[in-house]
Amino acid sequence: MTPLKDIQASLDTDLALFGAGGDLSLRKLMPALYQLDAQGLLTPQTRIIAIAREPYTTDSFIEKVSEKLKMGSDAPSDEVFERFTARITYLQMDLADAANYTTLNQQLNERPTNRLVAYYALPASLFEIVSQHLKTSGCADANTRIVAEKPIGHDLESSSEVNDALAACFDESQIYRIDHYLGKDTVQNLIALRFANSLFGNIWDERSVSHVEITVAEEVGIEGRWGYFDKAGQLRDMVQNHMLQLLCLVAMDPPADLSAQAIRDEKVRVLKALGEVDISTDVVRGQYGAGTSGGQQVPGYLQEEGANKTSSTETFVAIKARVNNWRWSGVPFYLRTGKRLPEKLSQIVVHLKPAPHYIFDAAQAHLAGNRLVIRIQPDEGIQLQVLLKDQGLEKDRRLREGPLDFSFREEHGAARIPDAYERLLWEVLQGKQSLFVRRDEIEHAWRWCDRLNEAWADADEPPKKYAAGSWGPSAAVALISRDGFSWHDME
Amino acid sequence: MTPLKDIQASLDTDLALFGAGGDLSLRKLMPALYQLDAQGLLTPQTRIIAIAREPYTTDSFIEKVSEKLKMGSDAPSDEVFERFTARITYLQMDLADAANYTTLNQQLNERPTNRLVAYYALPASLFEIVSQHLKTSGCADANTRIVAEKPIGHDLESSSEVNDALAACFDESQIYRIDHYLGKDTVQNLIALRFANSLFGNIWDERSVSHVEITVAEEVGIEGRWGYFDKAGQLRDMVQNHMLQLLCLVAMDPPADLSAQAIRDEKVRVLKALGEVDISTDVVRGQYGAGTSGGQQVPGYLQEEGANKTSSTETFVAIKARVNNWRWSGVPFYLRTGKRLPEKLSQIVVHLKPAPHYIFDAAQAHLAGNRLVIRIQPDEGIQLQVLLKDQGLEKDRRLREGPLDFSFREEHGAARIPDAYERLLWEVLQGKQSLFVRRDEIEHAWRWCDRLNEAWADADEPPKKYAAGSWGPSAAVALISRDGFSWHDME
Repeated sequence: MTPLKDIQASLDTDLALFGAGGDLSLRKLMPALYQLDAQGLLTPQTRIIAIAREPYTTDSFIEKVSEKLKMGSDAPSDEVFERFTARITYLQMDLADAANYTTLNQQLNERPTNRLVAYYALPASLFEIVSQHLKTSGCADANTRIVAEKPIGHDLESSSEVNDALAACFDESQIYRIDHYLGKDTVQNLIALRFANSLFGNIWDERSVSHVEITVAEEVGIEGRWGYFDKAGQLRDMVQNHMLQLLCLVAMDPPADLSAQAIRDEKVRVLKALGEVDISTDVVRGQYGAGTSGGQQVPGYLQEEGANKTSSTETFVAIKARVNNWRWSGVPFYLRTGKRLPEKLSQIVVHLKPAPHYIFDAAQAHLAGNRLVIRIQPDEGIQLQVLLKDQGLEKDRRLREGPLDFSFREEHGAARIPDAYERLLWEVLQGKQSLFVRRDEIEHAWRWCDRLNEAWADADEPPKKYAAGSWGPSAAVALISRDGFSWHDME
Repeated sequence: MTPLKDIQASLDTDLALFGAGGDLSLRKLMPALYQLDAQGLLTPQTRIIAIAREPYTTDSFIEKVSEKLKMGSDAPSDEVFERFTARITYLQMDLADAANYTTLNQQLNERPTNRLVAYYALPASLFEIVSQHLKTSGCADANTRIVAEKPIGHDLESSSEVNDALAACFDESQIYRIDHYLGKDTVQNLIALRFANSLFGNIWDERSVSHVEITVAEEVGIEGRWGYFDKAGQLRDMVQNHMLQLLCLVAMDPPADLSAQAIRDEKVRVLKALGEVDISTDVVRGQYGAGTSGGQQVPGYLQEEGANKTSSTETFVAIKARVNNWRWSGVPFYLRTGKRLPEKLSQIVVHLKPAPHYIFDAAQAHLAGNRLVIRIQPDEGIQLQVLLKDQGLEKDRRLREGPLDFSFREEHGAARIPDAYERLLWEVLQGKQSLFVRRDEIEHAWRWCDRLNEAWADADEPPKKYAAGSWGPSAAVALISRDGFSWHDME
């Protein structure tokens, strides 16, 4: 590990945050930058140039940032806040107007040794024009880093166009594509758990693993973004990015080192090995109807504000996926994601095969075997489910399920888990790409999802209804129970 | 599992407790019987005949029992205490006098359907005469169960004599040899952990396990029993019984079922596979000198009351043992036991081999790998040591050791762990022998220990000195550090 002081100089940065007035910027990025400053990770030279079309002044923008910071759980300290806000300049820009980039370039030239990091908190349709202007105006050079927010396209073709536009101006080594799931602490703990612990490393394959579940459940419905969501659907919104990234991290072969190349090469190998999925047997598409959420009656998807009442867009999808390689042959990966489910929950459950022979109380042979539960949200933590002897003399040869918690929060008392965006911004500042998505990853993921979307379009069947507040259509239960398993939270 | 009520009738028992006036009886056995009664595990017909040579009456004996119960942590309830004491009769006996057994037989005949369980809380030298009289007087028959307290002999020859004497009167299926370590909850959890959990079952061999430590540390010295202990030494006192039993439970192949025969057959296979030990390289013998224990200055072994100042008896022994079979080839089992060590501690530590390749922070390559720590006393519990990602952004690619506790006490709030003797007595009442030591186990264990004792006698070297309150002679540290390891608590 290089000592922090030795890399300080190379960290001097001008962070140009495009889309600074948006929700992501105010709710996530500015607070994350504040936290980096509080932890002493921003050099004294580092500046933040907040760019948007809204008519803020620097002062009124800082006022807005301050409001949001005060809503967070970590109350800002006056000293850090002063230092932090002194870094901020607000620049109102029309992104299509070349002249505005000249102004930006003048600002950048005040600190010629600073590296430009351009954060595109923008729709992907603007990536091309901003990139070209940055390049032409002289703002950007070979040292510049570009952070690109998702979604990048809505299928392979459109994402390739966006990536081509980026590639026309920047080298792949300059591009940091965000999937904020990769910044989550538990997701990185999965890497440590798998590759630093022989206990888990030794059993991480088809000989020991029975099946894997990946759930990304949302409690919310479509809140004020019906039109946007309806063009996408749950597969594009959640599976193509977060869920396939999680699947890659669970399934990838051990990388030879922790370099971005080694890790991303292994992830791509998983994506390439993803098997063809038969939509008639291995997939369940659902759409929520009216129901109950958080104790309230809520409307169905087709009754939401702005809804087209004949839409057949899915708000739920369950997929039995296969990774057809030596490590995972025969091991199903059950993916499940949806809106208006009973709770907000992202978790991975790795189920081990039972011991080959059972010698305990016959009445308990149904007890589930060992599971590793990796909870990504809401409470990050890892739980290992084991079977222990039941206590009490009369419970002869009886077992009980004993969950072993490695809840990160508890264990460290009040230790703070950095938000995903803090981690990701810190990685960008250091020039480390391993937690960002490479072009070929995105494209292989789209290729797999496109086939599903095309098959659905061909089949032209309506999605299965499920009541808001339920765990999706009953067919999603059948998808896994047919194989003799059940969803972890429904056992 | 057979419902309790269906086996009630066969549980009707006359428990003849020989040596009822002794320390074991009053401190452990009577409280354990009381607890069984409190849990509803003694049938209404069950009686306790307390036998000793002391001139108690039934009332004065109950008075004595009551005193001891009130000293325990679980305060007795009046209702249970009344029911419990109504079961007790005191019988003063000269164990050598046949007439006394006629009296006993008359008492037993009052409840002709009760089964006799004769508990020998006696020196093994008395087992023969008591067995003969029980048999001749008609007290005992083929349904009788004999519970034999340790120690059974002090070497193979003497233990065979005792076992022959028992075998002359009773079948092996009637004999329950006590090693109270087998009644401990954690020891039985080891069985559940190994055989109900594929996670552990899969890695329990030389491919995954680096080495195993078994420690039975005593904080006490020789308190008022110098003469007795000096004839035995630590090897006989602790290794031949408890430590080899623990080794068997860790090392044994999975039994085909939980029957006494299957389990004990597997344990015997381990004892037979125990390798020859070279006392010049694989063993450290120690004897404590003066030092500090619990903040007090304490005398050395040779300065204790009643000591023969030239004794070369060991109070400490560390052994690098080998189990020469397919499962454990090349895996050292380090045994360590002694008196006047820094704390009272019995634990097994199973160390896994590190992952084959290391990709995290090079400065942390020394971090210990995965360990399963099975704590038998003072606090029963199991701990799994894993490596997790260090929290905090600046701790890039750094790991931290995260202990996962399955502490039985905590997890269940105030749930009571039954004392080892409760468990063992309950097993005897049910006629289950799996937690008792079979004759061939004892004899194989003695065979191995005898070879060590003989080699020591031939070598005629004094034991190595260690200060009371230390972890034994420095040679015991060298024994394990030579192989690149260190004792778990001294890391």
